[in-house]
Amino acid sequence: MTLKIGVIGTGMIGRDHTRRIQQVLAGAEVVALSDYNPDAARAVQADLAPAATVYEKGEDLIAAPEVDAILVCSTGATHEAYVLAAIAAGKPCFCEKPLATTADGARRIVDAEVAHGTRLVQVGFMRRYDAGYVALKEAVQTRTGAPIMVHAAHRNPTVPEQYLTPMAIHDTLIHEIDVFRWLLDDDYVSARVLFPRKADRAHARLRDPQVVVLETAKGVLIDVEIFVNCHYGYDIQCEVVGEDGIARLPEPMAIQMRLGATLQNPILTDWKDRFVASYDVELNDFIKAATRGTAAGPSSWDGYAAAITSDACVAAQDAEGTTVAITLPARPALYD
Amino acid sequence: MTLKIGVIGTGMIGRDHTRRIQQVLAGAEVVALSDYNPDAARAVQADLAPAATVYEKGEDLIAAPEVDAILVCSTGATHEAYVLAAIAAGKPCFCEKPLATTADGARRIVDAEVAHGTRLVQVGFMRRYDAGYVALKEAVQTRTGAPIMVHAAHRNPTVPEQYLTPMAIHDTLIHEIDVFRWLLDDDYVSARVLFPRKADRAHARLRDPQVVVLETAKGVLIDVEIFVNCHYGYDIQCEVVGEDGIARLPEPMAIQMRLGATLQNPILTDWKDRFVASYDVELNDFIKAATRGTAAGPSSWDGYAAAITSDACVAAQDAEGTTVAITLPARPALYD
Amino acid sequence: MTLKIGVIGTGMIGRDHTRRIQQVLAGAEVVALSDYNPDAARAVQADLAPAATVYEKGEDLIAAPEVDAILVCSTGATHEAYVLAAIAAGKPCFCEKPLATTADGARRIVDAEVAHGTRLVQVGFMRRYDAGYVALKEAVQTRTGAPIMVHAAHRNPTVPEQYLTPMAIHDTLIHEIDVFRWLLDDDYVSARVLFPRKADRAHARLRDPQVVVLETAKGVLIDVEIFVNCHYGYDIQCEVVGEDGIARLPEPMAIQMRLGATLQNPILTDWKDRFVASYDVELNDFIKAATRGTAAGPSSWDGYAAAITSDACVAAQDAEGTTVAITLPARPALYD
Amino acid sequence: MTLKIGVIGTGMIGRDHTRRIQQVLAGAEVVALSDYNPDAARAVQADLAPAATVYEKGEDLIAAPEVDAILVCSTGATHEAYVLAAIAAGKPCFCEKPLATTADGARRIVDAEVAHGTRLVQVGFMRRYDAGYVALKEAVQTRTGAPIMVHAAHRNPTVPEQYLTPMAIHDTLIHEIDVFRWLLDDDYVSARVLFPRKADRAHARLRDPQVVVLETAKGVLIDVEIFVNCHYGYDIQCEVVGEDGIARLPEPMAIQMRLGATLQNPILTDWKDRFVASYDVELNDFIKAATRGTAAGPSSWDGYAAAITSDACVAAQDAEGTTVAITLPARPALYD
Repeated sequence: MTLKIGVIGTGMIGRDHTRRIQQVLAGAEVVALSDYNPDAARAVQADLAPAATVYEKGEDLIAAPEVDAILVCSTGATHEAYVLAAIAAGKPCFCEKPLATTADGARRIVDAEVAHGTRLVQVGFMRRYDAGYVALKEAVQTRTGAPIMVHAAHRNPTVPEQYLTPMAIHDTLIHEIDVFRWLLDDDYVSARVLFPRKADRAHARLRDPQVVVLETAKGVLIDVEIFVNCHYGYDIQCEVVGEDGIARLPEPMAIQMRLGATLQNPILTDWKDRFVASYDVELNDFIKAATRGTAAGPSSWDGYAAAITSDACVAAQDAEGTTVAITLPARPALYD
Repeated sequence: MTLKIGVIGTGMIGRDHTRRIQQVLAGAEVVALSDYNPDAARAVQADLAPAATVYEKGEDLIAAPEVDAILVCSTGATHEAYVLAAIAAGKPCFCEKPLATTADGARRIVDAEVAHGTRLVQVGFMRRYDAGYVALKEAVQTRTGAPIMVHAAHRNPTVPEQYLTPMAIHDTLIHEIDVFRWLLDDDYVSARVLFPRKADRAHARLRDPQVVVLETAKGVLIDVEIFVNCHYGYDIQCEVVGEDGIARLPEPMAIQMRLGATLQNPILTDWKDRFVASYDVELNDFIKAATRGTAAGPSSWDGYAAAITSDACVAAQDAEGTTVAITLPARPALYD
Repeated sequence: MTLKIGVIGTGMIGRDHTRRIQQVLAGAEVVALSDYNPDAARAVQADLAPAATVYEKGEDLIAAPEVDAILVCSTGATHEAYVLAAIAAGKPCFCEKPLATTADGARRIVDAEVAHGTRLVQVGFMRRYDAGYVALKEAVQTRTGAPIMVHAAHRNPTVPEQYLTPMAIHDTLIHEIDVFRWLLDDDYVSARVLFPRKADRAHARLRDPQVVVLETAKGVLIDVEIFVNCHYGYDIQCEVVGEDGIARLPEPMAIQMRLGATLQNPILTDWKDRFVASYDVELNDFIKAATRGTAAGPSSWDGYAAAITSDACVAAQDAEGTTVAITLPARPALYD
Repeated sequence: MTLKIGVIGTGMIGRDHTRRIQQVLAGAEVVALSDYNPDAARAVQADLAPAATVYEKGEDLIAAPEVDAILVCSTGATHEAYVLAAIAAGKPCFCEKPLATTADGARRIVDAEVAHGTRLVQVGFMRRYDAGYVALKEAVQTRTGAPIMVHAAHRNPTVPEQYLTPMAIHDTLIHEIDVFRWLLDDDYVSARVLFPRKADRAHARLRDPQVVVLETAKGVLIDVEIFVNCHYGYDIQCEVVGEDGIARLPEPMAIQMRLGATLQNPILTDWKDRFVASYDVELNDFIKAATRGTAAGPSSWDGYAAAITSDACVAAQDAEGTTVAITLPARPALYD
C-alpha cells in the first residue's frame, strides 16, 4: 500500500521532503501540493511530482479525499491551524519545527490530539533519528550508568544580522532542548543563562556566546555552550557523564589526513550537512506510522514541552545568571 | 514510473534486497520471485511481496513481460547463465558477487554485453557505495596528490573450518581487489603473497594471516594484510600514501566512552554490519539506471578484472613470495 | 656550581624530591634534612643522601650556613613559618602547596618577599610545567584567538571518607585555580557552584559532583566539573574556546589497542602518574633560579591569589548557585 | 659518587651530550674533551665544561686517569678504534651510531668485549628509551598476544641531494632495525625490498619510497615503508599485530585544535624533536651502569646485529623483490 501525502509549503524544506518521498523512500507518494504562492507549488509539481494536484488553500488539501497524510512545511505562524485541521480530519500529520509559535498554541494541538484519542502528529525534531544520537542513547542506557551531567555545545561559524539573542534559543538551542529530553528520558525543571564576554565577531544586537544551564527532574545538570560566531565550523558536541563513565556523541564521518605538518579531519561548515541523513529516517518513520493511521517519533507533547522550555530559556537570558523555573503540566496518558 | 523487478535466488541476500526494494527505496517493486527451492520464494512472497509472481525457473522470470529488470542472488555457479539470459532479453541485471565462477565465464558476459552495445549489468561490489570509501576517493583525488602506496587490512575475528586458503582471495580480498581498482582508477600488473608464521587460532587447512602485495600499471604498491583469525573484531583498514600526504578510511561511527580505566570505542564483530548502509545506495543506483534501461556502478568488465586478479592472487599464494603477472586484455570502449 | 639544598619534611613528597635532586637532576645536592620525626629524616638520609646533615628543627636547617636553598615539604600548617624564615634568611625557597593555610598567611609571605625586594619563593603548582599545558598555552596564544570560555573537568575514581565537600576546592580545584590564571594570564572576579544530583558512590558527607563556574577580569567564563567518584579513572580535561577556534589539553600518552571488539587506550587511575614528569621540570626550574639567588615559576603572589580564590569557591559551595565575588588587591610590581 | 666522563667528538651530538651531563642529569660531570679540531673542543669547554681538560688525541683522553667513562661522538669511521681502546682500558663507553662502519669492525668490538668478560659498551640506539616504544613493548608483552606482523613507516619531509638509496638503510631504517629486534625480542632471518614508482620529489640518485620486508626467526613478518620525501612531516608509525589484538605506537603529544573547518593536530617536521626526550633517558642509563663499572641498554652485539642486517637490506635493495638471507652467528653468553 502506498501512502498518499499532501505537502503544505513548498519552500526549501517542503521541496526537499517532496524529493525524499518521490525519489528516495519506499511506500509513499506526493499526491497534493499547496503553497501561499501557487507558482512555487506548481514548480515543485513540475520538477518532482507531476501527478500531484496543486491546491490553492492548505485547508482544501487537508480535506481532499485522496490525501492520506499531511506534511506541514509552511511558515511557522501557519503551523498551528494546519495541524489542528489535520487532527480534525483524522489524518496523520508531520509538522516541521515549531509545532506552534507559542506554548499555548502547542497546548491547543495537544488538547485536540488527546480529544481525538490516538496520536496523529509527528514534530520535525530530526536529531532523534541521527545515528550518532541513537547510539549515544544506547550507550547511556547500557554502559555509562545513570546520567548525572551533560556537557554540550552548539556552534555555528556565523549568523546573519537579523539573528538576535532570543533566536539562540528558538532557532538553535531548540534542537538540544528536544533531543536531551529524549536522550535522558527526563523533563526540565529550571534554566539559567551565563554570558562570558561577547565575541568580537558577534554583531551589535546579539549576545554571543552564552552557556545555558538546564536542570532536570532527575537532577541532571546540563550545560550547553551556544556560540554562533565560532568561525571555525558547524560543530555539535555532547558528552554524558554517568555513574560509571562517560559517553560522547561521535564526530561526523571524516577522512583523516596527514598534510602540511598537520594530522587533520575536515569539520563541516554548513548545518544542512550535519544531520542530512536523519531526515530520511525521520520521514520514513512518519510514512510507516501514518500507513497504520497513527504517528510515532517526537509528539505534539514533545513540541509543547520544547515550547515551554524555550520560553523559560529566553526569560533566563533576560534574568542573566538567575534560575528560571520550568513547569510542565501533567503529561496526558496518550504520550506515555 | 516504478521499476518492476524480478529476483532470482531468495536466500539471505535475495530476501534482504527484496525487503530493501519493497520497504526502503523509492521507485521500484518486486513483481517476480524465483528460487531453486520454490517454497523459499513463496516464503519471501508471503512476507514481503504478496503481489509478486513466483516462477519455478529463473529463465522464465527473466522472460516474463512484466519484469523490467533482474536481480541475480542465486548461488554463484548459476550467475553466468542468468546474466547472459538477461542480456539476451535486453533487461538490466544486478548480479551479486561473483559475476561468474571463472574468468572465462566473466569474459563471456563482457562479450555478450559489448555485442548488445549498451551496459546492462551491475556487479554487487557494494564497497564503492560506502560513504567512507567515497570520501577517501575524493580526498585522494583532491588532497593527497597522486597515490604511490596503499596499506590496507581486512580482518575477521574467525572463520569456519571450511574456509580454506584460496578463499582468503575469492571471498575476502575480492572486495579490496575491486575497490582499489576504483579508488586508484588503475589496473593491476602483478601479485605476490607473503606469509608470516601461522596464527595459533588458524585451523589446519588454512594459512592465516597473509600479506598480499599488488602492483598497479601506474606503479602504486599495495599491501593488504588478510587476517581472518584476528580474534578482536571485523576491521577494514585502508591508508593511501600520495605525493603530498596520506588519507585514511574512517573507522565506522562509534560512541567514544570512558569506562573502567579505558578510553574506548566499540569495534564491529560481524561483517554484515560494516557496509550495511552501502547496500541501500548500491541498489538505489541500480534502480535509477535500470529505469533508464541501462546499468551503472561496477560493470561486468570490473567483475572480469576482479576474476583475473583473483586467479593471479591464488597462484601467488602457491608461488609464495614470487611475483605472478596480471594481464588484462584491452578494455572495450563500452567501459570507458 | 652545585646548589646545596635543605629539605624540610621527609614524607612522601619530601623523599621524592630528595631522590629527584640526588639521582635525576643536575646542579644540586641535598645537604640537609629535617622532619618533625627525626627518624624519618634519618631514613631518607640513609637511603638517598648519606652526606646530608639531619637537623632536629627546620629553623636550624634554614639557618645552617651550608644550606643555599630550602624545600618546604612538611605538613601544610607549618609552611608559612618556614617560608617566612627562609625569606628572612634571604634563601630561595620552594614550598609545596599550600603556601599557607589561610589567605592572610599567604599575604604575610607576599609582604615579606616584597620587603625583601627580590623573588625568593616558588610554590609547588607543578601543572604549569606539564608539557601538555605548556603546549596548550602556546596554542591559545598563537592559534585560537583570545579566549572566551574554558570547559574543564577534574575527575578522580574515588576518594576516602575523610574527603569532605570543601576539599573539592582546597585539594582538587586548587590546581585548576592556579593553572588557569597562568594559562589565560588573567584574574578571577567571581565564583559560583552548581550541584547536580549527588552521585551514588559519593559518601554521606560529600556533595559530588559539582560544577564550579569562574569569571575572569577579561570576561572569560570557565566551567570546571569536579567529580571525585567518577569511578572510571583519573582524568583531567581542559578545552579553551577562543575567537578563532578551540584548543584541547592532550590525553596522556597511551598505547592504542584493538582488543576484544574495542578500540581502546588505557586511562590513568592514580593521580600520581598524571603529572609525574612535571615534577622534574618544576624542580629543575627552582634549581636554576636558586643558583642565581632568586626564584621563578609560580610565585607567592600566585599562592596568595589561589588562596583567595579557594576561599571564594568554598563560600560559593555554601551559597549554591549564587555568585561570590573574588577581589584581589593590587599586585605588587615584584610580580609583574 | 660523580662519574667523570670524557667526550670524544664535540660536534652537534657531542656538544648536546655534554650539555645533558652538565646541566640536566644527576651523577656525572664532563672532565675531558677531545676533537680532531681542538678549537671545537675548547669552545664546548668554554660554554659548558670549564673545568674539563682538552686532549689533542682521543687515545690520550681514554687513557687519562681522571676519566672513568667515555662518550664516542666523533665521526663514524673513528668509532671502532676508540671503542676498542676504551675496552682495552677497561672503561665503560657509550658509542653513537654506528658502532663501526662495517659488520667486521663491529664483530671485533664484540670479540674484545667478550674477551674482557663484562659489558662495557652501550650503542646510541635511543629509540629503546622512548616512552612510546617502552609502552608499546609492554603492551605487546602483556596484551596483544605473541606478535605475528609489524606494519611500520619512517617518513621524512625531505632529504638533501647527497642522501642516496643505501642511506635509506644505513641512516634511516637502522633505527627500526634495532628497535624491532628489541621490541620483539627476536632476530632477523631475511630481508626483501619492494619499490613502488618513484615519488616526484625524490632526486635523481635516490629511489624513494621503498618498502622493506623483514622476517624474523620466530616468523614475524615486518613491513616498513621508508619515504624520505613524504613532504608532510617527520612521522614514525609502528603497529604490532598479535594473536589477540593490535597495539600502536602513540603519536607524539600534540594539541588538538578546531580551526578553519579542520580538526587538527600538529605533526613534527624535524626529526630532532621526535625522540628528544629519549636522549636524556639513554644517557642516564649509561651513567647509572657506568657508575657500577659496566654498561646496559643496546650492546655491541646489538650494534653488530644491526650492521649485519643493514648490509643485507642494502643487498636486498639491489636484488629488488628477492629475499636476501640474514645470518647472525651464535650469540655469546655475555649478551644473554
